[in-house]
Amino acid sequence: MISVGVVGGTGYTGVEVLRLLATHPHVKLTSVTSRVERGKPVAEIFPSLRGRLSLAFTDPEIDRLSSCELVFFAAPNGTAMTMAPSLLDCGVRIIDLAADFRLRDRSQWEHWYGTPHACPELLQEAVYGLPEMNRDSISGARIVANPGCYPTAVLLGFLPLIKHGVVDTHHLVADTKSGVSGAGREPSTRNLFCETADNVTAYNVSGHRHSAEIIQGLVAAGACEPDLVFVPHLTPMIRGILATLYCELTDLKEDLQGLYEQCYAGEPFVDVMPSGAHPETRCVRGSNVCRLAVHRSNSGRKAVVLSAIDNLVKGAAGQAVQNMNIMYGFDETVGLEHTALLP
Amino acid sequence: MISVGVVGGTGYTGVEVLRLLATHPHVKLTSVTSRVERGKPVAEIFPSLRGRLSLAFTDPEIDRLSSCELVFFAAPNGTAMTMAPSLLDCGVRIIDLAADFRLRDRSQWEHWYGTPHACPELLQEAVYGLPEMNRDSISGARIVANPGCYPTAVLLGFLPLIKHGVVDTHHLVADTKSGVSGAGREPSTRNLFCETADNVTAYNVSGHRHSAEIIQGLVAAGACEPDLVFVPHLTPMIRGILATLYCELTDLKEDLQGLYEQCYAGEPFVDVMPSGAHPETRCVRGSNVCRLAVHRSNSGRKAVVLSAIDNLVKGAAGQAVQNMNIMYGFDETVGLEHTALLP
Amino acid sequence: MISVGVVGGTGYTGVEVLRLLATHPHVKLTSVTSRVERGKPVAEIFPSLRGRLSLAFTDPEIDRLSSCELVFFAAPNGTAMTMAPSLLDCGVRIIDLAADFRLRDRSQWEHWYGTPHACPELLQEAVYGLPEMNRDSISGARIVANPGCYPTAVLLGFLPLIKHGVVDTHHLVADTKSGVSGAGREPSTRNLFCETADNVTAYNVSGHRHSAEIIQGLVAAGACEPDLVFVPHLTPMIRGILATLYCELTDLKEDLQGLYEQCYAGEPFVDVMPSGAHPETRCVRGSNVCRLAVHRSNSGRKAVVLSAIDNLVKGAAGQAVQNMNIMYGFDETVGLEHTALLP
Amino acid sequence: MISVGVVGGTGYTGVEVLRLLATHPHVKLTSVTSRVERGKPVAEIFPSLRGRLSLAFTDPEIDRLSSCELVFFAAPNGTAMTMAPSLLDCGVRIIDLAADFRLRDRSQWEHWYGTPHACPELLQEAVYGLPEMNRDSISGARIVANPGCYPTAVLLGFLPLIKHGVVDTHHLVADTKSGVSGAGREPSTRNLFCETADNVTAYNVSGHRHSAEIIQGLVAAGACEPDLVFVPHLTPMIRGILATLYCELTDLKEDLQGLYEQCYAGEPFVDVMPSGAHPETRCVRGSNVCRLAVHRSNSGRKAVVLSAIDNLVKGAAGQAVQNMNIMYGFDETVGLEHTALLP
Repeated sequence: MISVGVVGGTGYTGVEVLRLLATHPHVKLTSVTSRVERGKPVAEIFPSLRGRLSLAFTDPEIDRLSSCELVFFAAPNGTAMTMAPSLLDCGVRIIDLAADFRLRDRSQWEHWYGTPHACPELLQEAVYGLPEMNRDSISGARIVANPGCYPTAVLLGFLPLIKHGVVDTHHLVADTKSGVSGAGREPSTRNLFCETADNVTAYNVSGHRHSAEIIQGLVAAGACEPDLVFVPHLTPMIRGILATLYCELTDLKEDLQGLYEQCYAGEPFVDVMPSGAHPETRCVRGSNVCRLAVHRSNSGRKAVVLSAIDNLVKGAAGQAVQNMNIMYGFDETVGLEHTALLP
Repeated sequence: MISVGVVGGTGYTGVEVLRLLATHPHVKLTSVTSRVERGKPVAEIFPSLRGRLSLAFTDPEIDRLSSCELVFFAAPNGTAMTMAPSLLDCGVRIIDLAADFRLRDRSQWEHWYGTPHACPELLQEAVYGLPEMNRDSISGARIVANPGCYPTAVLLGFLPLIKHGVVDTHHLVADTKSGVSGAGREPSTRNLFCETADNVTAYNVSGHRHSAEIIQGLVAAGACEPDLVFVPHLTPMIRGILATLYCELTDLKEDLQGLYEQCYAGEPFVDVMPSGAHPETRCVRGSNVCRLAVHRSNSGRKAVVLSAIDNLVKGAAGQAVQNMNIMYGFDETVGLEHTALLP
Repeated sequence: MISVGVVGGTGYTGVEVLRLLATHPHVKLTSVTSRVERGKPVAEIFPSLRGRLSLAFTDPEIDRLSSCELVFFAAPNGTAMTMAPSLLDCGVRIIDLAADFRLRDRSQWEHWYGTPHACPELLQEAVYGLPEMNRDSISGARIVANPGCYPTAVLLGFLPLIKHGVVDTHHLVADTKSGVSGAGREPSTRNLFCETADNVTAYNVSGHRHSAEIIQGLVAAGACEPDLVFVPHLTPMIRGILATLYCELTDLKEDLQGLYEQCYAGEPFVDVMPSGAHPETRCVRGSNVCRLAVHRSNSGRKAVVLSAIDNLVKGAAGQAVQNMNIMYGFDETVGLEHTALLP
Repeated sequence: MISVGVVGGTGYTGVEVLRLLATHPHVKLTSVTSRVERGKPVAEIFPSLRGRLSLAFTDPEIDRLSSCELVFFAAPNGTAMTMAPSLLDCGVRIIDLAADFRLRDRSQWEHWYGTPHACPELLQEAVYGLPEMNRDSISGARIVANPGCYPTAVLLGFLPLIKHGVVDTHHLVADTKSGVSGAGREPSTRNLFCETADNVTAYNVSGHRHSAEIIQGLVAAGACEPDLVFVPHLTPMIRGILATLYCELTDLKEDLQGLYEQCYAGEPFVDVMPSGAHPETRCVRGSNVCRLAVHRSNSGRKAVVLSAIDNLVKGAAGQAVQNMNIMYGFDETVGLEHTALLP
């Protein structure tokens, strides 16, 4: 049983972390913070948690949080980096669900996030929390940078091809479709029901922060100067990301299905579907699984990979809990056994 | 550990029963039937169950089912009544999620379901499986008639008022809003996305089968010749029922909030929300909870009760598992601990 | 050809007024105001209007607006009342789509809107713009108070019964289901896609501003001290209101269908559907029609009326244009011939 | 005024043709056919048309249809080709909204549609009804093959690049997202609300009929042996297609924005949006416009084109009416002036 705090409990990743931790057998939630809702019971803001969680929101104070063994940051970008050094000094371990520690290159980070980094000296220490790439480093990490939702779906889809060097990395396309929860719970006109329902749109075609994170991951997996076009789309669903990945095969005889099955054999949360399958986002709704399928184009020269996750689970809170399980030597799947909610 | 069969595993209540049973610690699923999908792995039809369930669909044969201790019928109306006598003879207990055993009065049943009943002698024996009314009888039952989704929401909402005799039963209105999953998974034009999305409609205003079931329940709770107007509506959500109930108070001084809290004290799956609350269906999505709130109208002479359930859980599969837990002396909440999925 | 201004062109009623006026053959749009978007082309904010409207937003200045013959206010409550006296002095006529002139009783208005009225002397002059009740007065009005969306649906549904005195007005229930556009386009958490999709909820059960407006209309139609329970619900659709109305019949032999058909004979925008029909909101999507059906309950003692409108058209912008047509002697249907968009 | 018949009036393209023709000033609708609904008033099946259309469905008989000047086929594939020869003999002109005449190559057609073509001699005569490519031929055509919804969006997006030879046609990717109405109105499980809502999926990755049609169009526009990967996706909206197109630029200095603006100058139904724009499907909902935006990838070596249409309007019924207008010398925009319905 470890004592855990959650900073930023009022957003969608926050409430999802709470949903998962509230019934996790090895976790004692001791602190959930929100400046805005300070003093209110969490279950008043999120009645879905009535009977599951009796805590009230508190201010995010180092004193209180420093008594936790582990703190999850489900707060906006820029929050974790201001509190991390103090907490680490107190021996607290950190999992940041925002972007503060995702890019190892400080100038890249500052370019994409538009502000100086508050503790650049920690960027190299932080471990990128994609268990399928970095399980060993995660187990001993003090700071885990939980991957972005798009990078999780895209990297898990591309990794087997990149690692085995069977694609031309100059022609990578990642066309991704996200549910609206990825845009967060802040008041906005853009994400109103009437702006997003019955509608599909691309956004940030000229550049999205997650492209830097994806490219960093592709390079880490062995890609040489990858040229990636990454286009995110907003679709009228609550949860879910479907990434459709396109690339040029350099080895036309490769057994793609076998490659994927071998690459992910034993992974508890990556499901390589049978040849010809089309993973739907609803088949992972509420679960920590990434379902993958790999296809070959008509001409045989291209691979098309489909990668489906729940952006709030494998793309955020579930992966964070998975990282926690690894960090503390728990069974990696404990507290993450939820079957997808279908329909 | 009991051995359990599911007849009719391809509908929405079927797949929901499977979701719940697949991880139930005291259940061994031994048989899932479907004539149409016979031979196919269940997880091929419902990829959400990949890794959770390795069974394939079989034909619904008495021989196979008779080796189960308990059989759930998640099949269309008229299925359970043809197989029930044989199974009971073999010592199998039955929970029917369809309507075959819900009405104790044979002529009423035959009126609403338009066909002769195949085993009318069992109508009196069957226990109406609303635990909050009939827990004791359920525990010893051979046949449990799992309540309809609308009757569950409406009865749990009306019960405290009826039992305490504080309303005029000649002016009961139940305006109910259902998600589309209540209409089943059969091919149809009516329930296509493009017919039901971005649309609200009432249906069956002139009479719906569930009105007989609700009235039977109201009478069982003590209502004298209730005059109920029950109007179901179809709304563009997947899961959920919100019942809005209107009635005339005969005792204007009654403490309604206290009445509800007292009536449901100790009930594990009924949540009386604080005074002034508006339960949302999403706050019970995927969970077995019914959330209730009771209001008084402006004039003070009417009560307005709001009752929210997930039609596939407390309104079907979850309540069926709850009934199973009661029948076998398991902890009533085991296998039903799912927190609502929000957002 | 009249010159028309629109104050508040960035909300949902605003953009709908613009959609209708942009192609109205007798209207020249000369001014569309928005403080926030001042200077931007309207079609930049609403690309749906590209090629239809070349105006840019301006500040709402009396000087500019006073050169219009007619000004529509599609701005928040409290805007029209501050500008109305000056505009009237300049000879400009006004249609307010907000609530400033809807209640004739000043104390009622100030109770429900929580602020002193800026020009109470105009409350008696303003005409309540429900053409089916007040066509004659509208034609000569200087100020038309365009009805609220709920009152439009509810009043058109109740009127025949009230006018003919065939119901007991002490037991009126109006259970209404609205799309989310009724909540406006302001940034908010409450109306985000992820808060409202796949969800149904009641709100303001303890009292909603529109109840006062409905009661005022019922009384105007002849109801004596009506006791109305009005409960609004939010449903996951963009446009549409379905009002389900319940009442006790005092004359059980009344030919309800005939009554409705007679009452609305000749009305261009009220469609009494055949006996037994269930109007769907999508059958009026984008059109100015109110579709009605009247049913009798099982017991025969209650009437159930179904009333469907598009909240942004007959419930707001379309009705405003209809009022304009009446005020200027145009054909009442001109510019409002849109067939509902189905699917 | 021409007399027009519609074969297959009960599907989504059928009802959309009826919506547009019902108010078209130069059209007299004389016949709407449906075997299944024969004898029923059209407005009973589609109450959205109440007051707009008084016809009843009839059987599709050559005798009756031969008295029309023009017949639209909104029926399933394989219908038009069986009736076309007889109708042409009677001097009737034909617009087929299905696929019978879309491919000029008979063997291609028979490969993709899996059946012998009933009148292959007409394949060469039929004109592919994309006005932006073939306006002149359409005006004199006896048979117009109305393009598929995906090919319309994809071709309009690619055409300027292909015509000007500024892309490498060996690396074309078309990732398309469609609303569910594209799947038709036939009863099915796959297209139920509960299967498609809150869900995104790719389908037919291994090959979709429309790829042949797109490639035929690309070649017609000048592409040499194009290698196209075309992946369609189903998204939870009723109407709309967004095509996201990826290609390699061969001329890195090309002014893409200028190229598109020049290419579509004067086109009444193609809107090249400003540089940097992201067309949303809702901005064309219910309208006949295709809105395009062209972007350059981060690396500068790729173009990303966004193309949004309403699949039932520019992707089907609206384009068919546009073709009719061209065939009969009407103003090309008459009857197609609908502004997009937003929100």
